[in-house]
Amino acid sequence: MTKTIYIAGLGLIGASLALGIRRDHPDYRILGYNRGEASRTIALESNMVDEATDDFAAFVPQADVIILAVPIKQTIAFLKELGQLPLKDTALITDAGSTKAEIVAAAERYLPETANFIGSHPMAGSHKTGAIAADVLLFENAYFIFTPSRLTKKDAVPRLMDLLSGLKARFIEIDAQEHDRVTSQISHFPHILASSLMNQAGQYAGDHPFTNNFAAGGFRDMTRIAESEPGMWTSVLMTNQEAILERITEFQARLSQVADQIAAGDEDAIWAFFDQGSRTRKEMEIHKRAGVDSFYDIFINVPDEEDVILMILELLRGTSVVNIRINEENREDINGILQITFKNKEDLERAARVVRENTDYQVFIG
Amino acid sequence: MTKTIYIAGLGLIGASLALGIRRDHPDYRILGYNRGEASRTIALESNMVDEATDDFAAFVPQADVIILAVPIKQTIAFLKELGQLPLKDTALITDAGSTKAEIVAAAERYLPETANFIGSHPMAGSHKTGAIAADVLLFENAYFIFTPSRLTKKDAVPRLMDLLSGLKARFIEIDAQEHDRVTSQISHFPHILASSLMNQAGQYAGDHPFTNNFAAGGFRDMTRIAESEPGMWTSVLMTNQEAILERITEFQARLSQVADQIAAGDEDAIWAFFDQGSRTRKEMEIHKRAGVDSFYDIFINVPDEEDVILMILELLRGTSVVNIRINEENREDINGILQITFKNKEDLERAARVVRENTDYQVFIG
Repeated sequence: MTKTIYIAGLGLIGASLALGIRRDHPDYRILGYNRGEASRTIALESNMVDEATDDFAAFVPQADVIILAVPIKQTIAFLKELGQLPLKDTALITDAGSTKAEIVAAAERYLPETANFIGSHPMAGSHKTGAIAADVLLFENAYFIFTPSRLTKKDAVPRLMDLLSGLKARFIEIDAQEHDRVTSQISHFPHILASSLMNQAGQYAGDHPFTNNFAAGGFRDMTRIAESEPGMWTSVLMTNQEAILERITEFQARLSQVADQIAAGDEDAIWAFFDQGSRTRKEMEIHKRAGVDSFYDIFINVPDEEDVILMILELLRGTSVVNIRINEENREDINGILQITFKNKEDLERAARVVRENTDYQVFIG
Repeated sequence: MTKTIYIAGLGLIGASLALGIRRDHPDYRILGYNRGEASRTIALESNMVDEATDDFAAFVPQADVIILAVPIKQTIAFLKELGQLPLKDTALITDAGSTKAEIVAAAERYLPETANFIGSHPMAGSHKTGAIAADVLLFENAYFIFTPSRLTKKDAVPRLMDLLSGLKARFIEIDAQEHDRVTSQISHFPHILASSLMNQAGQYAGDHPFTNNFAAGGFRDMTRIAESEPGMWTSVLMTNQEAILERITEFQARLSQVADQIAAGDEDAIWAFFDQGSRTRKEMEIHKRAGVDSFYDIFINVPDEEDVILMILELLRGTSVVNIRINEENREDINGILQITFKNKEDLERAARVVRENTDYQVFIG
């Protein structure tokens, strides 16, 4: 039976979800809401959706599944509106917000007790926005988190996993509060750190202009996410206050302890502090890329010459490359280490042998 | 006239300096000290040095230039030793430590008033160590900082710039204290942040195991330098206490302010905080790579297929590629955006045109 899917918000996330649904369910009817005309038109013209509206209420009565893919505040406003609108008996409602507890609470507050709601958080994104950037691969191997709660019926997760199978995401269930705690640690609070460090350095540069010149790889990496969209992160902070405040307080205690150790000249304690960080990171396998069990890295010391990367890749033709980059690693800055990541040890070893046999570049295995 | 250069420490830095000196001054005699035998043997066998010793004092009387390329503590110990050793009248002494004020102070304390000393900090490094990793390109386009002080004679900078011309580094002079302040902000304190965040998340993962799973691109980048060598960074902190403590205190005040704003639900203040970070980073041109005036980036949405990067690079054959990577940008994690950086706008535009004409991949210009 043809299903009707209603996606509210045809930005990067909503439009990419539409593409993923189309992939495995070409017979489903996809309806879209978007306030702005541009993404609405793109989604219609490229057949991501069959029909589109700027009136959220319009398509609600027809929908078997409603996906709210709008900013957090708007998600909560739409949940309130849905509480007043006629829903199909079988309607399943979900969202795509980066924090979950407040959205789940809003659903419980505004939706009828008979409603079927589950919070979702597709953990992917891009620096690009709008339907124009839609990408059926956006969620491939990414975590797609469900947060079941009081209004979640038993069929919700299997229905969504079937609907969204074309995304090739990794579906996982977790409590909404726990989701918010975990993401406060690995995402929300790090954004605060990155922006604070950037603001601090920016102010310092006023009195110490070389700050601008000497900032190298480490600083660049640590402040990269400071360029994220302010509006989105403001909403995240506003809807996950408790967990984030707890992380800030805990972190300040850590900084105070390090400061005390520095002031006391306690070399052993500082060494243990750095050593723990280094060991913890290795143990956490933060190196892992989603979908890849481990990293298999080769490092090639290449000169700064035209087509040198091309030449290396020609040597490796037919081997799957998971990632490639010119590396600016560790101590401060590094010059011209080409890092290539492979899916398995065999590919890595073959690559090392081929490069060693055919070039005189230094080759390290990471 | 043949000069005799004495490099104490044949690790990555010392051995790479030797290669750089050889490049422009093949007639100079290069002597090396190294405590460990492995790097001493490699440096001798690959002709990085003409002679090598494990007795630091042995070559001192012959040296026209002495470069201390050992850890900070050892640098200070050698400066003390040099104060008791017979130096050539013309001997010029320098070092390669990551902090400068304490090393300069040690030189002033231990060396005779007639000595010619200048602090140096070559701002480059690698995740690899030892003479085996030596690289004549290591310092290309990197800042090579001199910190002139009381014992620095007029000829010191021009002599070193001539000696080290083969490195193709960017030589710059700055006061030692100011060096330590600037690097506390953009390097030393960020290392504390990265390790603290890593330690915090590691502990959190004990009670919240999904912390390990959900950590994505932003967290990975922010903690990368937590894997740096603990010993080196302990020495850095121990020799730049005042500036680092000042940065920690200032940062804690920033965190407290953000915490207050979150607790108060002050959305405008949080938005302004994130917006400032984003704008400051763009203005600081932290995007710049050393030696490249600006970044010219193209983003290509590539499928996860074998040889797709090779195919793209074949299209771009003959165009200089500054950097290349599969990008995991911004919001959380991203899938398969190939980012290629070019030296100028013309190359960028040509690349965009060629990729658009020859593939159906989405192409963005960054």
